[in-house]
Amino acid sequence: MLAEIITIGDELLIGQVVDTNSAFIAKQLNKIGVSVYQITSIQDDKLHILQALKNAESRVDIIICTGGLGPTKDDITKKTIAEYFEDTLERNDAVLENIETIWKQHVRTTMLQVNRDQALIPSKSKPLMNRLGTAPGMWIEKQDKVFISLPGVPYEMTELVDNEVIPKLKEKFNCPFILHKTMIVYGLGESALADRIASWEDALPSHIKLAYLPNLGKMRLRLSTKGSDEAQLKKDIQDQINKVIPLIREEYAGLEDEDGSVEVVIAKQLTKLGDTLAIAESCTGGAVAERFTVHSGASAFFKGGLVTYSTQSKIKVLQVPESDINTYSVVSAQVAESMARNAKALFQSDYAIATTGNAGPTKGDSDAEVGTVHIAIATNTEVYSQAFNFGNSRIKVINKAVNKALEMLLKEIFKN
Amino acid sequence: MLAEIITIGDELLIGQVVDTNSAFIAKQLNKIGVSVYQITSIQDDKLHILQALKNAESRVDIIICTGGLGPTKDDITKKTIAEYFEDTLERNDAVLENIETIWKQHVRTTMLQVNRDQALIPSKSKPLMNRLGTAPGMWIEKQDKVFISLPGVPYEMTELVDNEVIPKLKEKFNCPFILHKTMIVYGLGESALADRIASWEDALPSHIKLAYLPNLGKMRLRLSTKGSDEAQLKKDIQDQINKVIPLIREEYAGLEDEDGSVEVVIAKQLTKLGDTLAIAESCTGGAVAERFTVHSGASAFFKGGLVTYSTQSKIKVLQVPESDINTYSVVSAQVAESMARNAKALFQSDYAIATTGNAGPTKGDSDAEVGTVHIAIATNTEVYSQAFNFGNSRIKVINKAVNKALEMLLKEIFKN
Repeated sequence: MLAEIITIGDELLIGQVVDTNSAFIAKQLNKIGVSVYQITSIQDDKLHILQALKNAESRVDIIICTGGLGPTKDDITKKTIAEYFEDTLERNDAVLENIETIWKQHVRTTMLQVNRDQALIPSKSKPLMNRLGTAPGMWIEKQDKVFISLPGVPYEMTELVDNEVIPKLKEKFNCPFILHKTMIVYGLGESALADRIASWEDALPSHIKLAYLPNLGKMRLRLSTKGSDEAQLKKDIQDQINKVIPLIREEYAGLEDEDGSVEVVIAKQLTKLGDTLAIAESCTGGAVAERFTVHSGASAFFKGGLVTYSTQSKIKVLQVPESDINTYSVVSAQVAESMARNAKALFQSDYAIATTGNAGPTKGDSDAEVGTVHIAIATNTEVYSQAFNFGNSRIKVINKAVNKALEMLLKEIFKN
Repeated sequence: MLAEIITIGDELLIGQVVDTNSAFIAKQLNKIGVSVYQITSIQDDKLHILQALKNAESRVDIIICTGGLGPTKDDITKKTIAEYFEDTLERNDAVLENIETIWKQHVRTTMLQVNRDQALIPSKSKPLMNRLGTAPGMWIEKQDKVFISLPGVPYEMTELVDNEVIPKLKEKFNCPFILHKTMIVYGLGESALADRIASWEDALPSHIKLAYLPNLGKMRLRLSTKGSDEAQLKKDIQDQINKVIPLIREEYAGLEDEDGSVEVVIAKQLTKLGDTLAIAESCTGGAVAERFTVHSGASAFFKGGLVTYSTQSKIKVLQVPESDINTYSVVSAQVAESMARNAKALFQSDYAIATTGNAGPTKGDSDAEVGTVHIAIATNTEVYSQAFNFGNSRIKVINKAVNKALEMLLKEIFKN
């Protein structure tokens, strides 16, 4: 079963908004065995929308559009879809009732005709009830194909996908089972990794596809397969993982979580061990803490964090010895280790991570070269740090430092 | 001048990676007067790539591909492009030299034949020298059209776009001037805003296009235009902004920065005033600090932050009175205000923001309903807070709280 996602909105094409909707929808579709063949982002333009629908219809079975369903004049998706199906818009009473309920609960201003008009949907469509906003989703079938239109506001879209779109697609189509497993590998570049595992890769069965995903000091190796026999496919992938691990024993850091993030693996392990974590950040500025706290359940292991951005705050708030700063500079192993040690004590945690560095573009309170980052780990038995240079792009330095800090912690907590 | 961006990689179509490359490229193209007609994300599949190139060639003048240029077997963009142009791959000595230089500087493992082979490029192409990685960009002209192929690794791609692609496109094409200005509006929903400014919108000159961009408690209103007379277009847009402001005086929070973020507006104002900021976060978990520290220059005003995630850390690290927590609960105005007041004192800053709430999905150390967030601001003269309920989706609660905290701070620092 193939799908195409069409995201509609000028904001995507001028680069004002990053399209996160497609990745979410693609991931959810994959889970029920629907492959996404293409993602197409187009303008709020009638002819362009009509053309994109026609092209998608020729390629795939399921077409999911997002965006352009608001009450204002720049939103034209709904009438364009009606035109595509040679249909007219009709008031749907259940949708109107839903809009009125939302309005009463959440909006202080008076309801307008344009809001009531959001209850107009193509007569051939079934509404997908949007409990979080006034723009309904729509489901239209044409022969064996399904067209779905969803609002572009991410949290409304995700709710509709999870509660309406996915259950209905599962009911309608008999989809194969799709499985992806991603191995996290540290310390080997793309070609060195490929060289190391070449014999294994060459012997992979044809129904297993391999992909290399390099990302700032971390490699991900994804194995994908699809078919009808779920148990057999799971076994096939696991067999291959078991075969390749001995070739990369030193560098292999575990399987990526379904959520796609190493911090989730760390979170699960800390929670399982009953251990806790504190974080002291300088150059990463809160980004390490944020990686953990965005996931639910963080309070089970995360005690707290400090962003000691200024030198003064490192001394005053985190009790880093001023003499160390004067002797070694604020970007040094000594300061990173002090930060980790003191954060661990302050928050009474089992582990602490600390980062201090110069993300650039200009030098801060230190003579350290732009890109220099020291990362320290404190445990109940030791404190240690490593020094890195992550280059001269600010965003890259921050992201690499976050990834490296997570990598060091991952290795630490899986040591035994 | 029209462009299409084709992002290539299975990871995009299974939702493993969010495509941030397209938005970056689109934004840079807009700045030199190139409009992006469509963004297309496709699989690492030869026939699909060939078809996408053909379709794009029929629609636009400039085709920019990203991805699929790595040294491993799953990367097939380069040979597919050679096939599309009925061309062969030839070794480019300058590219080989660049690869060898990068290898010597950054890589410890031995260089392999697959790495040397990255110097093979279509004979009809000119290389775009990648100083940050071993995959070269490529530039191919066919009649009046330009095809550009770039690596998918974001920091390599951005460097090539800024230093190679944009200068070369400016040289080759005589592009119109494109201007977008985005007004930030708080406290009005999409339809209420549209209703308020309807008379102004109806009278907009035809060369100015208006878009409404709702996002979690914040509306953005974008005016766009394009043409040859830069000075006149700037004046036209400014005239319209001046006309609409009186209609939304209470709700208008200023123009969005070119970087597209309210925190940049705050950063500039604080730096201009010579004022400093501290942040104490609970439910936002470092996300507010991260919004500021990702931008360079943050050290000019940002003293530091605390992520007091556990109740114990609020008491011990931030000296929130335990009696207040017992009396009012950890999610309360009193605790938020204590956090802001004490963070301001601890970091000796002029302003402090604090957040405490329950992002869900389960209740934490408080009986407060999921979605409840208290946000406090401390200034040199007062401390105040507001209470919100941001619903029951964790990500939404966190993002809304961050946006609202920034909004409150923005209003505070522009008060006078």
